[in-house]
Amino acid sequence: MTARVLVPWADVGELPAGLRVEVYDGVSAPPADLSGVEFYVLPYDRGIEPVRLMSRMPALRAVQTLSAGVDTILPFLPAGVSLANGQGLHDLSVAEHALALVLAAQRDLPRWFRQQGEGSWAREHTRSLADSRVLLLGYGSIGRAIERFLHAAEATVVPVARRARPGVHGVDELAALLPSADILISVLPGSESTRGLIGTRELALLPDDALVVNVGRGSTMDTAALTTETRTGRLRAALDVVDPEPLPAGHPLWTTPGVVITPHVAGGSASFYPRAKKLVAAQLHRFAAGEPLAHLVT
Amino acid sequence: MTARVLVPWADVGELPAGLRVEVYDGVSAPPADLSGVEFYVLPYDRGIEPVRLMSRMPALRAVQTLSAGVDTILPFLPAGVSLANGQGLHDLSVAEHALALVLAAQRDLPRWFRQQGEGSWAREHTRSLADSRVLLLGYGSIGRAIERFLHAAEATVVPVARRARPGVHGVDELAALLPSADILISVLPGSESTRGLIGTRELALLPDDALVVNVGRGSTMDTAALTTETRTGRLRAALDVVDPEPLPAGHPLWTTPGVVITPHVAGGSASFYPRAKKLVAAQLHRFAAGEPLAHLVT
Repeated sequence: MTARVLVPWADVGELPAGLRVEVYDGVSAPPADLSGVEFYVLPYDRGIEPVRLMSRMPALRAVQTLSAGVDTILPFLPAGVSLANGQGLHDLSVAEHALALVLAAQRDLPRWFRQQGEGSWAREHTRSLADSRVLLLGYGSIGRAIERFLHAAEATVVPVARRARPGVHGVDELAALLPSADILISVLPGSESTRGLIGTRELALLPDDALVVNVGRGSTMDTAALTTETRTGRLRAALDVVDPEPLPAGHPLWTTPGVVITPHVAGGSASFYPRAKKLVAAQLHRFAAGEPLAHLVT
Repeated sequence: MTARVLVPWADVGELPAGLRVEVYDGVSAPPADLSGVEFYVLPYDRGIEPVRLMSRMPALRAVQTLSAGVDTILPFLPAGVSLANGQGLHDLSVAEHALALVLAAQRDLPRWFRQQGEGSWAREHTRSLADSRVLLLGYGSIGRAIERFLHAAEATVVPVARRARPGVHGVDELAALLPSADILISVLPGSESTRGLIGTRELALLPDDALVVNVGRGSTMDTAALTTETRTGRLRAALDVVDPEPLPAGHPLWTTPGVVITPHVAGGSASFYPRAKKLVAAQLHRFAAGEPLAHLVT
């Protein structure tokens, strides 16, 4: 008796016996017959089609997603099927991109790259990350990975989480903390409680020239308020996520000086793959041995 | 008896008695009469004019430069005058910029910024810094500051210094180390022994797609060889220093895909000023007390 398994890459390392592993990457066509698939590793960042495919897998027992968030998957999960998430797989990738955004903004990279296109060597001193006071909004594993970079930069880190605990401020203290922040980095996930958390009032509390960075979810910030405060030049922003996504063509944020935008690419870098493959191999061993999966959501 | 002191900023903190402090920033005109100046803090990064000014200071006893390198100053230093350098003042600024260049190259920032100008949300996964093997050429205080960032990024750091010591490779091992480097970061100073150290042969030893980063001195790398290897697309580069500087208009490096250029701005960020002002205040206290200066070069 061999269980069918669908994974997104051919090279998932040494696998246990008793599994028939097939590849579905979410881009090319899936196998025509999905009736025997018992374990399905959802291709990462391939939209809704791979998710809908679960409805064609009557033998399905377990799904492994490679994202941390499962909000877009849960509505499609057949009853009785286990779901394990990819918590931690993207932490380092997101932290790295957060630092790339912060440094790009502080060290004027958009200006130098523009000058490069013009062949201009004009020079000027810039801001730095060093000595900055950074409000880190969201203090889970991604927040702590960012903090390690910020410590290397000799920045002052002020962590803020949902609830206060020793060394960590609660989100209810935000209004008191914003006025002294040089940089605000949000890694908050999307949820009802985080929606619009950074709005007109919160942005107004930031000092002039502060930098607002979002590598969490676009919905946590009020796009209109952010647009207003950056259009006047009072605040700067470096955003990997916005609300809505994609940012509509012609939206004023695209062309506002002091605003840097990347198209939701923080999590999708090479560092993700070795970590994801290691997790998938370990989960398949657990599955073959009849053990419960790690990172179970349902 | 009051000693005249020339400093580049008005706000150098609390100063000892017995000094008459005047400001000369290297941009506006210097005081007409320099005859009584005994202590001169050279304005940072203001070209050769402030250096030439020393010849008009017959009472000069000590010069404080705010750069680590003094090669451009020594030929103008009057006989018998002490020279103290600014070792360490720029370490963090340079390390921060080195990381900005590495992350910009690995995470495709030039592409996203170009897309931003076009209002395009097109997405693709990128390289990462995490898991990369980084050859760190030059392992003084700047190299160690960069290493702290690289550790936060979970990169593998291979330090190389002039002479091998425990945990650090010697520069004579370079040929053996280059073939396994994903990223080469050079922070080497300019000198006769480092001139052209990274040339055609060394670049050829790097694997395909490796990234060459220079935040040291342009003269340490063979610009023509670097141009050849990046024009073919075999190597990538992120350069804050080149040889010659400024890079001439129309030089092919300006427009080579996979090459990122910033105009020698690594050391000149805000993080420099508090450190520089603290040093100047401490040196002025030493000077007023008749104690020897720190960081004496001559």
